[in-house]
Amino acid sequence: MTSELASDILSVDQVRRELELVQHRLNELLALQEITLALSQHLENVTLVLHQITATAASTLQAEASSLLLVDEATGELVFDHIYRGSGPELRQKRLRPDEGIAGWVATHGQPLIVNDVGQDPRFASRFDEETGFRTQSILCAPLWTRGRVIGVLEVLNRCDGRPFNEENSRLLQAFCASAAVALDNARLYRAVQQGYLETLYALAAAIDAKDPYTRGHSARVAGYSLAIARRLNLSTPALDTVMYAAILHDVGKIGISENILHKPGLLTPGEKESMDQHPVIGARIVEGVAFLREARLCIRHHHEWYDGRGYPDGLRGEAIPLGARIIAVADVYDALTTDRPYRLAWSQAEALVELQRDAGQRLDPALVQVLSEQLTGATELSYG
Amino acid sequence: MTSELASDILSVDQVRRELELVQHRLNELLALQEITLALSQHLENVTLVLHQITATAASTLQAEASSLLLVDEATGELVFDHIYRGSGPELRQKRLRPDEGIAGWVATHGQPLIVNDVGQDPRFASRFDEETGFRTQSILCAPLWTRGRVIGVLEVLNRCDGRPFNEENSRLLQAFCASAAVALDNARLYRAVQQGYLETLYALAAAIDAKDPYTRGHSARVAGYSLAIARRLNLSTPALDTVMYAAILHDVGKIGISENILHKPGLLTPGEKESMDQHPVIGARIVEGVAFLREARLCIRHHHEWYDGRGYPDGLRGEAIPLGARIIAVADVYDALTTDRPYRLAWSQAEALVELQRDAGQRLDPALVQVLSEQLTGATELSYG
Repeated sequence: MTSELASDILSVDQVRRELELVQHRLNELLALQEITLALSQHLENVTLVLHQITATAASTLQAEASSLLLVDEATGELVFDHIYRGSGPELRQKRLRPDEGIAGWVATHGQPLIVNDVGQDPRFASRFDEETGFRTQSILCAPLWTRGRVIGVLEVLNRCDGRPFNEENSRLLQAFCASAAVALDNARLYRAVQQGYLETLYALAAAIDAKDPYTRGHSARVAGYSLAIARRLNLSTPALDTVMYAAILHDVGKIGISENILHKPGLLTPGEKESMDQHPVIGARIVEGVAFLREARLCIRHHHEWYDGRGYPDGLRGEAIPLGARIIAVADVYDALTTDRPYRLAWSQAEALVELQRDAGQRLDPALVQVLSEQLTGATELSYG
Repeated sequence: MTSELASDILSVDQVRRELELVQHRLNELLALQEITLALSQHLENVTLVLHQITATAASTLQAEASSLLLVDEATGELVFDHIYRGSGPELRQKRLRPDEGIAGWVATHGQPLIVNDVGQDPRFASRFDEETGFRTQSILCAPLWTRGRVIGVLEVLNRCDGRPFNEENSRLLQAFCASAAVALDNARLYRAVQQGYLETLYALAAAIDAKDPYTRGHSARVAGYSLAIARRLNLSTPALDTVMYAAILHDVGKIGISENILHKPGLLTPGEKESMDQHPVIGARIVEGVAFLREARLCIRHHHEWYDGRGYPDGLRGEAIPLGARIIAVADVYDALTTDRPYRLAWSQAEALVELQRDAGQRLDPALVQVLSEQLTGATELSYG
């Protein structure tokens, strides 16, 4: 009876310990689940997710600090991308040579590694501690695998309770790494498609510009000036995208204008002028079927409206002209003034800005002329300063 | 002492039950974690993920069947999208009117719902059971929320052990729904960008085609024929994309050819012919900077090579010509034959296919001519059959 009692009391302890263990694992999994869901929710903002992963890895594993390093494809180096606590932001963008340090070993071997006393491990790269003053004691580090390659490593440093990192901790860190790898991969895939889209627009616009030696590179420059204005206005990301797409494509309608008119060296006859002035309408018609360019289409159609209502094709006036179209108009005029034309050489920036001021309130939105002037003169001072 | 003993023995039981409960919750979370990770890994293949979610929801919640229904934005109806077990695929694409059935209620109210005896609930839509012979007894159903809107519902039917669905089950199903909603949202976002890319390419290619009334719609048709061939060859998705992009853009270099040559009604002089034959080279140069079109670029450059080596610009021969370029060549010739030209009317499909056979082995890859013939005549028989 006594021995039975003892065994039962022992059972309670055993089961309680087991319960604690499972409860602990449950909490870890909850954290992991939250992270995984969060990262898949931020396809467009991977930085936020990587920051969250780095922070949660540290807190869940009770570590003093953590960092995420990414492989630089070109050089094979590991670059500090996200740092949580520890030596802080001063480490950002610093690089480990391929195979340098614990992180380098993990990236090269594609396996996790626990080093509970870095002083005893010759692989440890002490130069970062020397630079930053942070004292690394222990490291748990695991690789980010995706599509059969290691694209980075995640490491946590110095357990807060002074206990060593163990295999259980390593498994959890590997789960975090799996999530981080997927987030990075998705974000890169998404960015690649978006990047490809932009590059394609630029390439096709450049091909249209190149038909006339005087407009070579015009669309890309107009996009650059337009973005400079739009950014200063703190437009939202979708609005910025709209301005960018529209600016690149603002002259796409010139595909539909006869070369005889497009390249005529002298003045256009009234009939030819009328044809030429159709290019914003034709441009808008070209992109009509593209759902993605619905907003941009209006900016293309209206980029030759005048602020005072004397422009074309619809004689819109003031705020009735879409903001993107008013931005592109300023950028378009500025680029035309500062490049060579068949009938005159390029004007200087200062001369062109004076001319823009003259156009402000008539052809151009005065507020936007002001913004471009500030952006350009600011930039010039910087480049001389 | 006896009462202490009793309380200790009771503790063992209590703690064991608690342990079982936590262990059970752990297993659910593990399933959920696996699903969430899987779904974020398949940005490009959401169908796979939705199937997995539907199946795992059923097995984790010990239900006999499950289905995922998506809101049709246009009509507000709920459409059966994925069905696991139960009445099976015959339900697919069937529709619930807005607010019809338990699923309709959940979509409208945006809240989960447990109905443990559907016979007692007037909201239950029995017509699907009547059609399929499946007998629904109990339903647990929860909404898919994303960006403040309900985009669908996930439901599990009939608990296998005959017990009622409870609040704990509902919470787990809601977690599955959160994952499914994110997967759908990401996939749609990705698809929108890709779709926008394609639409833009089509729009710009169409604008170039439209400069010449005889080539109106040419690029889109060549893309259609090329895809028909490429699909029959079971090319991978990236290879299909390459063929599609290249086919749409194969004549983009015509932007760089003077209209006097492009639109000349009679025969070209040798000098003019030389200029005209530059269009594949110019086209390849236009897309040179676009990383996304690296593979497509080669197909654009070589779409006028001949299978026997007598084509241009590089006189490549046979398999040395990129497969995509050989595919586009067949599609290009077929479309030219079957549309009106300045000097003749369009040929019939039968006449054009005879002509393609004549070109096989000389201008065109005979295997690909064969594939297009089969595809076109197969389709014709179908449309008459």
